[in-house]
Amino acid sequence: MAEFIARRRVEFANTDMAGIVHFSNFYRWMEEAEHEYFRSLGLTIMQKRPDGSYIGWPRVSASCHFEAPAFHEDELEIRLRVERIGYKSLTFYAEFFRGDKRLAHGRMKTACCICGIEGTLESIRIPDEYRTVIVETPAS
Amino acid sequence: MAEFIARRRVEFANTDMAGIVHFSNFYRWMEEAEHEYFRSLGLTIMQKRPDGSYIGWPRVSASCHFEAPAFHEDELEIRLRVERIGYKSLTFYAEFFRGDKRLAHGRMKTACCICGIEGTLESIRIPDEYRTVIVETPAS
Amino acid sequence: MAEFIARRRVEFANTDMAGIVHFSNFYRWMEEAEHEYFRSLGLTIMQKRPDGSYIGWPRVSASCHFEAPAFHEDELEIRLRVERIGYKSLTFYAEFFRGDKRLAHGRMKTACCICGIEGTLESIRIPDEYRTVIVETPAS
Amino acid sequence: MAEFIARRRVEFANTDMAGIVHFSNFYRWMEEAEHEYFRSLGLTIMQKRPDGSYIGWPRVSASCHFEAPAFHEDELEIRLRVERIGYKSLTFYAEFFRGDKRLAHGRMKTACCICGIEGTLESIRIPDEYRTVIVETPAS
Repeated sequence: MAEFIARRRVEFANTDMAGIVHFSNFYRWMEEAEHEYFRSLGLTIMQKRPDGSYIGWPRVSASCHFEAPAFHEDELEIRLRVERIGYKSLTFYAEFFRGDKRLAHGRMKTACCICGIEGTLESIRIPDEYRTVIVETPAS
Repeated sequence: MAEFIARRRVEFANTDMAGIVHFSNFYRWMEEAEHEYFRSLGLTIMQKRPDGSYIGWPRVSASCHFEAPAFHEDELEIRLRVERIGYKSLTFYAEFFRGDKRLAHGRMKTACCICGIEGTLESIRIPDEYRTVIVETPAS
Repeated sequence: MAEFIARRRVEFANTDMAGIVHFSNFYRWMEEAEHEYFRSLGLTIMQKRPDGSYIGWPRVSASCHFEAPAFHEDELEIRLRVERIGYKSLTFYAEFFRGDKRLAHGRMKTACCICGIEGTLESIRIPDEYRTVIVETPAS
Repeated sequence: MAEFIARRRVEFANTDMAGIVHFSNFYRWMEEAEHEYFRSLGLTIMQKRPDGSYIGWPRVSASCHFEAPAFHEDELEIRLRVERIGYKSLTFYAEFFRGDKRLAHGRMKTACCICGIEGTLESIRIPDEYRTVIVETPAS
């Protein structure tokens, strides 16, 4: 992919008393776009292993810059790309648009981990089944 | 203040199927600590004005780095300080601890704005009533 | 309509440490289905009036019965109908399915209100523009 | 107990564009009050068992009636009591007050379950360790 596109409608519960979308929603939408991208590749973000643990992708960091507010019932387009495939981590870059107007942009770094049933996290090299289908698209 | 301390109990609804706190909660807790700090100064984050608009503090950006997971029923300590008081914005730095262990740290930049009843945002110089009580504590 | 159908994918953030969807999400999905139904009729749940207030539909009550858990990445079908159009209120009935299996069902009563810019709520007779397009479908 | 009291501050993120608390928060606060009550008895809502499963308390149903809106920074008092201890379930009744004014009241039925690591739920008789400390307080 050059870019993966996810779309979200702003729901009433996403707004706050300032009449705009509460900023915390952008982090969840960024994550949802990542998961939608994984599904589009035939992958899942929580891959169950025979022993009951999962291969999962917890966040190492996430940041977002807010340029203009989003409003109730807005149709948002989230443009996502994998900026970097590391040894154990992925870096995603996301932009949020309403029509032609960019409202926000952010970045997430996720680590490939074995998520144990006790809530343990052990970071691992990204397995080949992910590595062969995820396409790195650095900023041009 | 050198640091303002807020405390949060991890609720069941803050967890996800990986058995740990979902990362989006840290952004909300950072904001809640900021608002608690404002209240401790006799201020409110949504100051109503005579015409029905508010002086509010929407986020310009927010980032968080996750170092270790938080679990159900953990008691978290959020250590907040104002890293910088700008002309129109504040920069907060927050650290999340469970006991002595730091779990995450993040940064938020907020802009002082007139929030109109139509959802409009107009950034303004931080008024003196805020400026005289908010204490800047740069990193040592 | 006999029934209005909305669809939702269960997102990772909707799950809790029990590995299933947290119950609070069903109330939000019920509301989102209601709002989607309104949009399908050319209506909006927050209709701005010239004086800055809104005609809105706050909840009078909402209940939900949970029959089976929903899981991450499930595709849910929400079947919604207006059980009763009252003088000032609507009663919705919603059922949640994954394929043929019903997972939950609930009921919401909403009141037609003028929502003032100060957070005031004044219940009013449902205006004709709503009454003429919303179709009552009692249980058969 | 006659009644267990939990307190919550309304946070900014709990509000919606109507300027009041979004109704979905009341269900989460009801659950949080229940969990706080469990902790006050030396119990936890997610009791780990040697095989990695939990004794948990998923909701069978939950309802809430909304009488007056709650606003940003309100201090809410949640009055909770166990209306009924059944063979496999508990029924809670909760009232939400701001000062003397009741804002909402609701009811939750929870089932004592073994929550397996695969997201399975198996309802069981409420074990004696719960039964001996939880006090039934029917409506007078």
